[in-house]
Amino acid sequence: MNVFNDEYFMKRALDEAYAAYEKDEVPVGAVIVHKEKIIARGHNLSEKLIDFTAHAEMQVFTSASNYLQNKYLNECKLYVTLEPCIMCAGAAFWTRIGEIIYGTADLKRGFRTVSNNLLHPSTKLKGPVLENECSQILKSFFSAKR
Amino acid sequence: MNVFNDEYFMKRALDEAYAAYEKDEVPVGAVIVHKEKIIARGHNLSEKLIDFTAHAEMQVFTSASNYLQNKYLNECKLYVTLEPCIMCAGAAFWTRIGEIIYGTADLKRGFRTVSNNLLHPSTKLKGPVLENECSQILKSFFSAKR
Repeated sequence: MNVFNDEYFMKRALDEAYAAYEKDEVPVGAVIVHKEKIIARGHNLSEKLIDFTAHAEMQVFTSASNYLQNKYLNECKLYVTLEPCIMCAGAAFWTRIGEIIYGTADLKRGFRTVSNNLLHPSTKLKGPVLENECSQILKSFFSAKR
Repeated sequence: MNVFNDEYFMKRALDEAYAAYEKDEVPVGAVIVHKEKIIARGHNLSEKLIDFTAHAEMQVFTSASNYLQNKYLNECKLYVTLEPCIMCAGAAFWTRIGEIIYGTADLKRGFRTVSNNLLHPSTKLKGPVLENECSQILKSFFSAKR
């Protein structure tokens, strides 16, 4: 049995979400995996950087492309604790990333609220994975804000 | 008569598109205007940076938010030579930018190919402005590639 399964990598994305939480950022984390190896890690930094483009996914797309020296990430998998928004799905389209595995759906701002077809035709979508933990961290964050 | 009209600022966005052209990048340029003053300039750098998130609009969103120290750009106008893609429209949504003025429509990858409602409800959309020049630079670029 392979310990490097979807749950393993989603836990690493969750580690990133907890890092965001500790910085008082909306707790979303992401990792990109290439040949069973994590090549990029990131968490939402919109508040700290005063920049909405600093979503976890955007950062790992940039990091992974830099690491591979390739704009295209078709051999990679993105693990992200929350379903990507329209911006991040649009970025994913350009990268042609091989697969996106999300933790919990985003019924308010997830890309599927607009269309199921925003991703590149060659990109697979899978989820939810570790849904309970991925959603719980967000609920805790927002309930503490009220 | 105000010389700082839409054509004036679109010409500044075109200056950026020409800078991209000279770097062998898909020639799209953008500026962000706040109270009739340009506070951010950028052009597509996807090839140089090996990063699809380096569209002109993404860069000026980051720069303008940093300049204003505000994630929200509701008092700003984005001038961009080509209709934004889904990624850039998704980013624009988060910034709640006041107005987007585009040079030429993108019938293949423009955000309106998916939905007219990707932008924030408070964001105005205007265009085309200087359509001929904004589309001609793209045509020249791609015909030279063939």
